[in-house]
Amino acid sequence: MQSVHLPLHNAVPVTPATGALSPLSLAAVSLAGGFWGDRQNLNSSAIIPHAVSWVTRLDWVANLEKAAGGEKYEHRGREFADSEIYKLIEAMSWEHARSGETELDEVLDAFIDKLAAAQDPDGYLHTLFGRPWQQPRYSDFKWGHELYCFGHLIQAAVANHRATGATKLLNVARKLADHVCTMFGEHGLNKVCGHAEIEVALVELYRVTNERRYLDQAKIFIERRGTGTLPLFEFGQAYWQDDLPVRAATVLRGHAVRALYLAAGAVDVAVETGDSELLDALKLQWQNTVARRTYITGGMGSHHMDEAFGEDFVLPPDRSYCETCAGVASMMFSWRLLLATGETKYADLIERTLYNIVATSPAPDGKTFFYANTLHQRTNAGTAPLNDDGVCIRGGSSGREAWFEVSCCPPNVARTLASLGAYIATKDDQGVQIHQYAASRIQTQLASGLLVLDVDTNYPATGRIKVAVAESPDSPVTLSLRVPAWAQGAILDTGDGPEPVSPGSVSVTRSFQPGEEILLDLPLEPRFSWPDERIDAVRGCVAVERGPEVFALESVDLPAGWELEDARIDAASGVTDNEGAVTVKLVGVRPPAESDWPFAPANNSDGTDGSFQADVPLVPYHSWAERGSSTMRIWIPTTATSS
Amino acid sequence: MQSVHLPLHNAVPVTPATGALSPLSLAAVSLAGGFWGDRQNLNSSAIIPHAVSWVTRLDWVANLEKAAGGEKYEHRGREFADSEIYKLIEAMSWEHARSGETELDEVLDAFIDKLAAAQDPDGYLHTLFGRPWQQPRYSDFKWGHELYCFGHLIQAAVANHRATGATKLLNVARKLADHVCTMFGEHGLNKVCGHAEIEVALVELYRVTNERRYLDQAKIFIERRGTGTLPLFEFGQAYWQDDLPVRAATVLRGHAVRALYLAAGAVDVAVETGDSELLDALKLQWQNTVARRTYITGGMGSHHMDEAFGEDFVLPPDRSYCETCAGVASMMFSWRLLLATGETKYADLIERTLYNIVATSPAPDGKTFFYANTLHQRTNAGTAPLNDDGVCIRGGSSGREAWFEVSCCPPNVARTLASLGAYIATKDDQGVQIHQYAASRIQTQLASGLLVLDVDTNYPATGRIKVAVAESPDSPVTLSLRVPAWAQGAILDTGDGPEPVSPGSVSVTRSFQPGEEILLDLPLEPRFSWPDERIDAVRGCVAVERGPEVFALESVDLPAGWELEDARIDAASGVTDNEGAVTVKLVGVRPPAESDWPFAPANNSDGTDGSFQADVPLVPYHSWAERGSSTMRIWIPTTATSS
Repeated sequence: MQSVHLPLHNAVPVTPATGALSPLSLAAVSLAGGFWGDRQNLNSSAIIPHAVSWVTRLDWVANLEKAAGGEKYEHRGREFADSEIYKLIEAMSWEHARSGETELDEVLDAFIDKLAAAQDPDGYLHTLFGRPWQQPRYSDFKWGHELYCFGHLIQAAVANHRATGATKLLNVARKLADHVCTMFGEHGLNKVCGHAEIEVALVELYRVTNERRYLDQAKIFIERRGTGTLPLFEFGQAYWQDDLPVRAATVLRGHAVRALYLAAGAVDVAVETGDSELLDALKLQWQNTVARRTYITGGMGSHHMDEAFGEDFVLPPDRSYCETCAGVASMMFSWRLLLATGETKYADLIERTLYNIVATSPAPDGKTFFYANTLHQRTNAGTAPLNDDGVCIRGGSSGREAWFEVSCCPPNVARTLASLGAYIATKDDQGVQIHQYAASRIQTQLASGLLVLDVDTNYPATGRIKVAVAESPDSPVTLSLRVPAWAQGAILDTGDGPEPVSPGSVSVTRSFQPGEEILLDLPLEPRFSWPDERIDAVRGCVAVERGPEVFALESVDLPAGWELEDARIDAASGVTDNEGAVTVKLVGVRPPAESDWPFAPANNSDGTDGSFQADVPLVPYHSWAERGSSTMRIWIPTTATSS
Repeated sequence: MQSVHLPLHNAVPVTPATGALSPLSLAAVSLAGGFWGDRQNLNSSAIIPHAVSWVTRLDWVANLEKAAGGEKYEHRGREFADSEIYKLIEAMSWEHARSGETELDEVLDAFIDKLAAAQDPDGYLHTLFGRPWQQPRYSDFKWGHELYCFGHLIQAAVANHRATGATKLLNVARKLADHVCTMFGEHGLNKVCGHAEIEVALVELYRVTNERRYLDQAKIFIERRGTGTLPLFEFGQAYWQDDLPVRAATVLRGHAVRALYLAAGAVDVAVETGDSELLDALKLQWQNTVARRTYITGGMGSHHMDEAFGEDFVLPPDRSYCETCAGVASMMFSWRLLLATGETKYADLIERTLYNIVATSPAPDGKTFFYANTLHQRTNAGTAPLNDDGVCIRGGSSGREAWFEVSCCPPNVARTLASLGAYIATKDDQGVQIHQYAASRIQTQLASGLLVLDVDTNYPATGRIKVAVAESPDSPVTLSLRVPAWAQGAILDTGDGPEPVSPGSVSVTRSFQPGEEILLDLPLEPRFSWPDERIDAVRGCVAVERGPEVFALESVDLPAGWELEDARIDAASGVTDNEGAVTVKLVGVRPPAESDWPFAPANNSDGTDGSFQADVPLVPYHSWAERGSSTMRIWIPTTATSS
């Protein structure tokens, strides 16, 4: 391993110079089993090796080798194939910081060697462009994804340096970033990439190197977008957020992953440059997007066509796209706003997205993945269309697939899970804030001394979170716990007996003694969630949630002979939790008589039949489609749906 | 005009050798003003000239000239640009049959001369492929649209010959068809075009020439589709109907226009070859498609992404695609089944599609067109994205546009309106069947003598249809009138006083005397239509229809201060017709409090406020968006939408 063993407190994905909260490193927060700790282990043992095997088998790694070799070669994979390797480098780097040396380190070093060798003398690095037999560099800002790939390389380099102390990849990234600053600076090409991503990377490279020009370049890209440098095409300029300057927009629109990566980078620029106007614009965009363009799962992206946000309240469950990468990107955006503001609503959305998008994508064996995350599966997923390499050709496939021609999502899941410890808690001058509840140890040096906390919980299976103080400074420390917005009726016991606490943040300030415990009980009764009436697509339906998990009705749980479309929920009977089995009363509708025409003069939409009912268990949405082919819905029609 | 004045009874779009009903020609049925007659006049005076000016201005006509010239040239427009010219030739040919000589004849002749000159010696004719500097012929069956363009050329040639007696274009088509039979016959290339269309054309060319190999070739194409000769791609093999043999399918799927053109051609093959198994399969496909995959407007195509049918009951109003061409193609399919079977349900769907898709597309001035026909416009249509030629780059644009990069729809409207007379009535051995009600004269030679009928009506403004016999054979004749499926309570008066008649077909058989009148009164009270409860996207909503017209609520008709999303319909108050103004009682909902999250523990979906209500007129859907920018919806939420 080419690493210098740096103090591990450098292993932090995002390190703003200012902000309400300061992040903690992967060394400061370690997960100990449980919902997320188990998934981190799955990531290192299965997800990352699986992804490495695919980028190798498909010769995407070989692209780098051949580019270094200098001989003419046929590029394999899509324009952004390089970036999947970069995201895996990022994932393996965080994994190294989390677990110490593992078998993955060898792959990591080899990947870094290959890409370093492929870099052009002037810093440019992309395996699809610029060689005599290839398209020229920067000949296709729409679809070329050159700056996008650079962004992922830079993020990987920052992660690698912070996690291992090594500088080889960081130097590659600096050289590449210098090239970008020269080419696209104030006096350079007046262009932006069709896919935002480099912005967020350049700011982080600035943070790690203190090289101001990287921040300046990120700011240039942020300010340049929305000025119409990208061509018009059939999905409109909003697709790549080139319709409006970032600071003029009031809501996210266009391609969801593009919009969210851009927003994350823009927060970084706003924070580092003290641009409160820009930061306010992004807070407003977040607010309107969450209030009007986000699914109950935290999923973003209502259109299959352009993988884009819909108009306000266009949230069709059966044509939801909700790309896994948009979930990751949404976390990136929210995390930056959380650090900047300290407001718990951002952590609320991260929690929702983690449990219902990030956790949903990988199968329990870590070898297949949802790319899109539909809220309503109407027909049993058929066989996915695979190409000759055995790769799924359609991201919107209705099943989890091993790999995709456009395979951005599995490596995005990998880097997110590997770095998840860094998203659990933060600190400020007064103490520590716990945002996400997972069995974990949190240890951090405060100004007044070392604070070590052990978080013991089976959350989200149970609602009790025990925070035990293992070590604490002598002086008073403030310990803050997020009470999720859904947690009406939460109870806190700081040692003086239980007291009700409201959603938001609850703080305890005192000189803690080792052995002291704080207990937070979050109410995990399953609950109904009703949609805003402006969401036309789920009118007359209700969803069930329990804690941070959204639940789903899956056809394999229906009584024999029922179809999903026959089931109505008897909402008056409520939802119960029978020893962990979240159960609702379903009433069957008389299957409508076969008709030649599905529109009738009489309203027969409430044809429920009392003799045909059953208590039926729901499953957490993240664990649907694990028991064979099925149909599924999150939004369940209620028994009386129309006047 | 290069025409031989043939007997005009040849001016018939579709002439099956057998079938329950025989078509009538454009000479046999002439429209006299009214809803459709006025649109036919608009077609000749505005729509066709407008389309001619665009294909000329954009150099799509020049492609043909340059191809004939033999010099190297840059092809303008898309792969199927030639076909728009062919559809206009078809439109102008029918228009010639309908109106006699007009100014359009000169354009028509010039277009024919140009394309004849562009034909290669071996019969091939496409301006984008096959020249030394171009892609080779037949190098791209997925997207090349070569056989698709040939199909439209052949249809144009058949129309031109039938309408004018001229043979120049027919000879071009024969030579082209001969080339196709050689290339793609049993011993030729085992390929089909990515876009069905040539099948329906080849059968009609067989019908006009009696050349059996054209029918055989159509049959080969029909049987070959579904055997996997087209490559897999991300939308799946169903996109081009290559997933299943035509005779094995039970419902239409994939790209809607492709599916419907294919189905129309398959009916033709089934009828001409006496293949009742194939015909039965198509009848079943029609039935299932209409029962489960068709909008209340008759629109087909639920997806923007792949312009495709959705799964059963996936009929989202706000993301409906409902391409105008799919409406035209649906008429083609239904008309062929009507001729084959005589069942009125096919004419019912044609009527619905005519009034709510075909009539919706063109603006009253005939100079802008809907390409997609949404059932719910949520935001005021912004400015459409136009390219440097002033052409709309997105078919799914929310407004009517002058022309499109993919501009299949306006010429399809043009050829449909020009030939509309042929879809009004049919005959059989016993007499005449009137399928569509329009002010018209119907004159046809029966075995027993000449029958001349004058249809006098303001339909669909009023429901009275008066059929006056102007001339009749001495022997008994059966006159059949379609009673639309929606027309509960229709009244027929054959001279013996009014009698109730049921939906379906009503017949009168007798020896008619000149001057006799038959009166059919169709009930035009506006009515509610409720959706099948399996259509999730419009649960809790109701639509209003009146006669064949679907109505829409348009924001310009709302009281000041209301938004479309505030309006609920008080269905208990019914729908009234105040001297032609179809009016409903709307109740305003309290605008939901601005919220950070649109999913709540309480069901507040029925926040109607009795103090906030108004009687509001609806407009026929086909005339929406004629009064400036607006929002619109067909499906209106009812006041109580949830338990």
